[in-house]
Amino acid sequence: MSSEDERFMRLALELAKHGEGWVNPNPMVGAVIVKDGKIIGVGWHRRFGEKHAEINAIEDAKSKGHDVRDATMYVTLEPCSHWGKQPPCADRIIREGLRRVVVAMMDPNPLVSGRGIEKMRKAGIEVEVGVLEDDARRLNEIFIKYVTTKMPFVSIKLALTLDGFIATETGSSQWITGERARLKVQELRRRHMAIMVGAGTVLADNPRLNCRLENCPEKVKVVLDRSGRVAGAVKSWKKFRLFEDGRVIFFTERPELFEGIAEAYPITEPGEILRKLGELGIDSVLIEGGRIACQFLSYADKFYLFYGPKLFGRGIKPFECLNVENANEVPLLRIDSIERLGESFLVTAYPGGGDVQRNR
Amino acid sequence: MSSEDERFMRLALELAKHGEGWVNPNPMVGAVIVKDGKIIGVGWHRRFGEKHAEINAIEDAKSKGHDVRDATMYVTLEPCSHWGKQPPCADRIIREGLRRVVVAMMDPNPLVSGRGIEKMRKAGIEVEVGVLEDDARRLNEIFIKYVTTKMPFVSIKLALTLDGFIATETGSSQWITGERARLKVQELRRRHMAIMVGAGTVLADNPRLNCRLENCPEKVKVVLDRSGRVAGAVKSWKKFRLFEDGRVIFFTERPELFEGIAEAYPITEPGEILRKLGELGIDSVLIEGGRIACQFLSYADKFYLFYGPKLFGRGIKPFECLNVENANEVPLLRIDSIERLGESFLVTAYPGGGDVQRNR
Repeated sequence: MSSEDERFMRLALELAKHGEGWVNPNPMVGAVIVKDGKIIGVGWHRRFGEKHAEINAIEDAKSKGHDVRDATMYVTLEPCSHWGKQPPCADRIIREGLRRVVVAMMDPNPLVSGRGIEKMRKAGIEVEVGVLEDDARRLNEIFIKYVTTKMPFVSIKLALTLDGFIATETGSSQWITGERARLKVQELRRRHMAIMVGAGTVLADNPRLNCRLENCPEKVKVVLDRSGRVAGAVKSWKKFRLFEDGRVIFFTERPELFEGIAEAYPITEPGEILRKLGELGIDSVLIEGGRIACQFLSYADKFYLFYGPKLFGRGIKPFECLNVENANEVPLLRIDSIERLGESFLVTAYPGGGDVQRNR
Repeated sequence: MSSEDERFMRLALELAKHGEGWVNPNPMVGAVIVKDGKIIGVGWHRRFGEKHAEINAIEDAKSKGHDVRDATMYVTLEPCSHWGKQPPCADRIIREGLRRVVVAMMDPNPLVSGRGIEKMRKAGIEVEVGVLEDDARRLNEIFIKYVTTKMPFVSIKLALTLDGFIATETGSSQWITGERARLKVQELRRRHMAIMVGAGTVLADNPRLNCRLENCPEKVKVVLDRSGRVAGAVKSWKKFRLFEDGRVIFFTERPELFEGIAEAYPITEPGEILRKLGELGIDSVLIEGGRIACQFLSYADKFYLFYGPKLFGRGIKPFECLNVENANEVPLLRIDSIERLGESFLVTAYPGGGDVQRNR
């Protein structure tokens, strides 16, 4: 792997990110075509169902009068070899006569993984795999989870005080974090297809649960409403802002109450809820409701913990459903990054061990 | 202020830090002597009662055969003009014939502030004040607090889970953070003259409360023991490790129980305790006991919050003595820095506002 390969792949990864929020449940993919050391075409997968990155890059090069024959393509994910909503990219790359293809990561779908690469190699193309693979895997962590398990990628987002409260005892939580942290939440919403909260949050805060960034698609709003309290309030003519745009899905013991109001399923067990969302084509859920987060803790793939510079002393804690006695037998996270956001900061973490566990 | 002045002052500040832990309740001071653009002498205040940085720098230069006449001295604190444990540095600087003195900050003691500068200026020395003043003030935040208020600088150190617990409900707290975080605690102990805990911590964990770094002086150990429980345990022949070295001071309603055991004062109110420690010449207290931290919250000058990558769900919270209802009427901190320490991280904060308060 040369530093030049890395440089072009890094650009392809950056291009891929332009598809964030629009391509789900497809992966974000970027492609760069290079000939004689010069970039002659770039492309990315723009929107679910539309052309793939490789095709967009080829067409970009051609539209500018370049010949892609004998060029090198950098692409963040193995080109597909099968017909989906689009014809197979591997075939097109072969037909266009590219000489070399550099791939960041293989297709994580075990049914097709390696086939695009094989096809291109058989056609005489030099194929290199694994350039910036870690970055590519991280970029598409949602896609990888979904395509390999059919369960959505579950992110838990919380806003906490420095002493770990998500609200005061009276339920006051606006605001724990500052403006820059709240803007960051909008970016998280863009990344996830669905946002999930509990009925309590809907009734108390009446959130819109949309993504307020420019160029952000509508969100699927998922509400856990065991007893159908939101349906009851709707029937008393209460207007909820989450119905203003996007699909709304309720999980409840009383689906009949939601007839004529919203899509509802008679499911309340967390694992079953996630499986159902997977079936519905939803590849990612951002759990924003503080109290429901604990129920989904064992399914969490990622944590976004925002800390605001306050102390509450007492109040509502996020993971009260846990019952831990020994400090060494507890859910352990692996902190991935810490980012300052004005007076607040964001800790991004994954489930799983670290050095603490070994330091008994 | 030239970039050269800043460069030499930065070195003087670095030298000053060598005195950390040894000079209290004096300030840390460093000095650099420069002639014709070359450093000819360096010095720092090494230990309480010993020679000041300026004298050490002059003697360093002379011992190497340099002539300090017409040289420039960079010193992190205004040279003293009065007799203390040492003769006045300003007089020595004048006598040695230095031409220019660059000072980071004036003496914070209102009784003498500016006098050393005045004396040197009157003697024809060119004196410049304020080079890297912010850094100098931060370096000596403990000294500044103590010399201006006669109250010790109060730091609260806590080890918290990501959800804000200092122990499980059964009191288990070893270990929340990793080894690198615990090493950092030793650095904090070096910085402070005294370490304070509650009797509960002494009885439960039997900590030694010493500083285990190389080149670290003995610590004053301060224990809040309202009812004299530690004295009772000592009389039952229990051995406590905190008596192994350094001075031990108890604050208690039952000082008579401590006769023959340790120094004890009949004071239990936090403000009075701090005033007494100030009278005893203690310029800084690191509060390590989780439960007592809340009592001293309103006196805190600095917070060292270590977070380990764990979730407890329930357990002991550090600031339960607070009673907050509205999220906008709470103790607000100003986060100064966030430092990763392996799988844990340290948030350093000061009391006081930030952007969150204004974001209603």
